[in-house]
Amino acid sequence: MVDERGQVTAEARVPTPVGADAIIGAIAGLAETLGPGLPVGVGAPGLVDAEGVLRFAPNLPGVVDVPMRGQLIARLGVPVVIENDATAACWAEREVGAAAGSNDVVVVTLGTGIGGGIVSGGILQRGANGFAGEIGHIVLSADGPDCPCGMKGCWERYASGSGLTRLARERGVGERGEEVTALAAAGDVLALEVMADFAWWVALGLVSLTYLLDPSLFVIGGGLVEAGELLLQPTREAFTGLLAGSRHRPPVGIVGAALGERAGAIGAALLARQ
Amino acid sequence: MVDERGQVTAEARVPTPVGADAIIGAIAGLAETLGPGLPVGVGAPGLVDAEGVLRFAPNLPGVVDVPMRGQLIARLGVPVVIENDATAACWAEREVGAAAGSNDVVVVTLGTGIGGGIVSGGILQRGANGFAGEIGHIVLSADGPDCPCGMKGCWERYASGSGLTRLARERGVGERGEEVTALAAAGDVLALEVMADFAWWVALGLVSLTYLLDPSLFVIGGGLVEAGELLLQPTREAFTGLLAGSRHRPPVGIVGAALGERAGAIGAALLARQ
Repeated sequence: MVDERGQVTAEARVPTPVGADAIIGAIAGLAETLGPGLPVGVGAPGLVDAEGVLRFAPNLPGVVDVPMRGQLIARLGVPVVIENDATAACWAEREVGAAAGSNDVVVVTLGTGIGGGIVSGGILQRGANGFAGEIGHIVLSADGPDCPCGMKGCWERYASGSGLTRLARERGVGERGEEVTALAAAGDVLALEVMADFAWWVALGLVSLTYLLDPSLFVIGGGLVEAGELLLQPTREAFTGLLAGSRHRPPVGIVGAALGERAGAIGAALLARQ
Repeated sequence: MVDERGQVTAEARVPTPVGADAIIGAIAGLAETLGPGLPVGVGAPGLVDAEGVLRFAPNLPGVVDVPMRGQLIARLGVPVVIENDATAACWAEREVGAAAGSNDVVVVTLGTGIGGGIVSGGILQRGANGFAGEIGHIVLSADGPDCPCGMKGCWERYASGSGLTRLARERGVGERGEEVTALAAAGDVLALEVMADFAWWVALGLVSLTYLLDPSLFVIGGGLVEAGELLLQPTREAFTGLLAGSRHRPPVGIVGAALGERAGAIGAALLARQ
């Protein structure tokens, strides 16, 4: 439950159950526990269409074409908003987080994969079907590593946790991303080189997004941004080096997210309030 | 000069002179010849900021940071709109061309390079500085051929006239793009294979744009679309094959542009009317 400034005033959690009916039951239970009679916002990990149907959720087996919004309205009798979770997180950062006041911002969530959301001209971008902002699958290297999406060399093959792990192994700097950032923080030269390579891939995607969308600010979230300036500073340097005509452009900000792992829930709740 | 339906009611042309002052003089002369006292729209081949300053025009030597809008208003005493030419062409196609009535559309102009424009939620996307829609420089192959922008493997290194020429030479199918399309139209097997490869690169960029923006329609313009279905049909096939979860998505249209090389002028004039 959030107030009008996005402050969390009450909170409850349950593990995600298996199956669409059980998930809807769990959400309804949370809503009735926290704020009976209040509007409900849901950040869902998949493709949500304009009618609030969860079309496809790669990490929720069997959840396909579920009319989540309709079923929750029928059950709760309150207004319900369903939005992709990364899109909702973007809105939270734009309304009450690191991008407050920015009208042209892209939120990039670096974790197991890459999620994201786009605000252009102050408007949260949904696209024709509500699927906009799946930024992890822009292709950066057409002959790169296979991606589960069926293509090769998607951005999230490079600028995600698994991408950092691969870079670290190639250089013999530990086996996991956490080890690299810990070593880099301690000043290890090889680990710092791995971070610079990783930041280059982050920046390469940001440059493509800049040519397309011309944002004034990128907000970087997700587990990997816990590295802080150790990641953000080399990303800024690589970005400036890659972007053509940067002398003729106002600088583009690259900052860390402010709201952490609750951003999706806060954004969905703000959308329901609004 | 256009009417409210975008029909061209009068037309005049002059060669582009050298230097910012001469260019502004030429535009003012055309406006005074065609429609004295009427609002003026300019489609400019470069980065145009929100104040109507032409920041940078790669093909107009010496034209940097020119306050074009202010100078034309001072000279003509009428409202003036300046927009990037590809962005203006996008608006024309959306208002009175191949994308009429579509609220989420990307116009992709395949010529010497790749230009483009984006309409999302019915709104022409400009970005924070007016630079949105430079779609030719999304990177599709990080270790690909050098691009004058300073990066490697930009989309326009593949899906442009020079990209088609390179593919044709690699396979020994003529020296120029026009030869390939003529041979393909005549049923030449090698030429059809080159067209399929070329269409694959066009589609790869469209897939990235679909993940980001979720348009319902792509409008393909520029000289290369004169190949018509010979290009569009293999592009559609490659697109459907590349896009993940396409069973869960409504189909995305891929059609040819309707307004030809006057689209930029028509769009700029419509923006001035509006």
